[in-house]
Amino acid sequence: MYPLIIIGAGPAGQTAGIYAKRYGIKFLIIGQILGGTTNEAHLVDNYPGFKSISGPDLAKEFQKHLDTKIQEEQVERISKDKDGFKITTNKDKYQGQSLILGMGMKIRKLNFKNEETFLNKGISYCTSVNINQFKDKILAVVGGGDSALTNALKLSDLAKTVYLIHRRDEFRGAPALVKKAQKEKNIEIVYNAQVAEAQGRDKIEKIILNTGQKLDIDQVFIDVGGVPNVHLLGELGIEMENNFVRVNKNQETNVPGIFAAGDITNNPLKQIVTAAAEGSIAATSVYKYLEK
Amino acid sequence: MYPLIIIGAGPAGQTAGIYAKRYGIKFLIIGQILGGTTNEAHLVDNYPGFKSISGPDLAKEFQKHLDTKIQEEQVERISKDKDGFKITTNKDKYQGQSLILGMGMKIRKLNFKNEETFLNKGISYCTSVNINQFKDKILAVVGGGDSALTNALKLSDLAKTVYLIHRRDEFRGAPALVKKAQKEKNIEIVYNAQVAEAQGRDKIEKIILNTGQKLDIDQVFIDVGGVPNVHLLGELGIEMENNFVRVNKNQETNVPGIFAAGDITNNPLKQIVTAAAEGSIAATSVYKYLEK
Repeated sequence: MYPLIIIGAGPAGQTAGIYAKRYGIKFLIIGQILGGTTNEAHLVDNYPGFKSISGPDLAKEFQKHLDTKIQEEQVERISKDKDGFKITTNKDKYQGQSLILGMGMKIRKLNFKNEETFLNKGISYCTSVNINQFKDKILAVVGGGDSALTNALKLSDLAKTVYLIHRRDEFRGAPALVKKAQKEKNIEIVYNAQVAEAQGRDKIEKIILNTGQKLDIDQVFIDVGGVPNVHLLGELGIEMENNFVRVNKNQETNVPGIFAAGDITNNPLKQIVTAAAEGSIAATSVYKYLEK
Repeated sequence: MYPLIIIGAGPAGQTAGIYAKRYGIKFLIIGQILGGTTNEAHLVDNYPGFKSISGPDLAKEFQKHLDTKIQEEQVERISKDKDGFKITTNKDKYQGQSLILGMGMKIRKLNFKNEETFLNKGISYCTSVNINQFKDKILAVVGGGDSALTNALKLSDLAKTVYLIHRRDEFRGAPALVKKAQKEKNIEIVYNAQVAEAQGRDKIEKIILNTGQKLDIDQVFIDVGGVPNVHLLGELGIEMENNFVRVNKNQETNVPGIFAAGDITNNPLKQIVTAAAEGSIAATSVYKYLEK
């Protein structure tokens, strides 16, 4: 029986572990991908203190700091137990008095031709874009929500042209943002279209839409949201918000003993630094929970 | 007229700047101490990614990342203006459409004899203690609130003895924590006492209480809270909570255009990583605010 089991080995889970250790809480951390989605980032330039570092390298720095072995197992079931919770993995069973859920989310891909080929070579899924490198470039943002609209507007300040490509004839995003995007001179909205193919040599040069339209392009941002990894939470009775785990300022869920941190939560900004902060708060709340 | 003025150059303000830059927001950052209270920390071992770094060095890493000149001026007045806000410093006047308040808090000192002398030589104000280095040590925690009680309990797991020194005969902290501390074998509560003097050679060895009692000691933790730097906020109409600036999950205050991040806010955990995260969220909220 562990006082705490952390599920997920991204910045949220790793930081929860760093803090749990400081509090002297005996814990187990289970995760399949060291660093979580950080590990998929070509370049991270928004985690304060590291001006520019590759995702895998940053994940390693977190791991050095955590300095605890991660159980690289696949969690198959999370259930309530009489004194806490039971985790069943592909290899073993574990019992915990408390849980921190840090399983993150999966980025949604579009599955067009050569999407994988040009990943980090002109195609990115980064939702918090650093605009400064895109002066006078021709860009495309794919998506129809607040995030896609915000990124398109942001990029239009410096870019030559921003194509905003949306598969429907109406946006999901806030009307104020839609109006602004429609008014912006160098944003060109392409409704009812999807990317069918990317072309280029070493990096992307052109995209072809399912309408047959061909666009010369320097960079494509795919911003169609992500899917939180919540499929194992069904039997716990956790309150959700738009499919994300609802937490309060202490990272507590509605179920006593279950805490959550990072991309899996309903918190407003999904960044490495926010995930880490939430991990530190969750571990602090676990400490107080166990003291009672 | 700046779209954004950030007040405070600690982790919250610096990170707000890092993100504001990414969003392409023109901003001014005013602060007197680069790194804020981080700069006072002898050793930081709880900011994820840096296993162990001096406070001033971490502040410099943040500054390298921010890469923007900080106006090293003393803010003397913050007032409303017809199109936003006006900041008066000891040198100049600035106008901003929006503000991020990141002025932090001042650690409360006790002002006993040699308190300064043994700072970081057996005396610390760190409220998030890493217990692992205090195995079998004799420690003292000074304070009467939740934080002091929590730290005393935490330290008692490994320490030989923890003196919990409180100037009154009753604790302010949660009754459950008080009961637990009273029951703990190796916590010795000293009521109605204050530290009068610290003694030692290269580092602290002994403290003398105002009751005349002398205690051999390896380390003293002063945990009597801090005072948020809110004295300039009087004329803005900002809602407070226990003298801290009340913010929601988006780091918005009740006053449109004013956001806050870090130790000055009512958020539950005061750490470098949480301050940084709040700075990133505040800058994101400013971006949305300015878009409207």
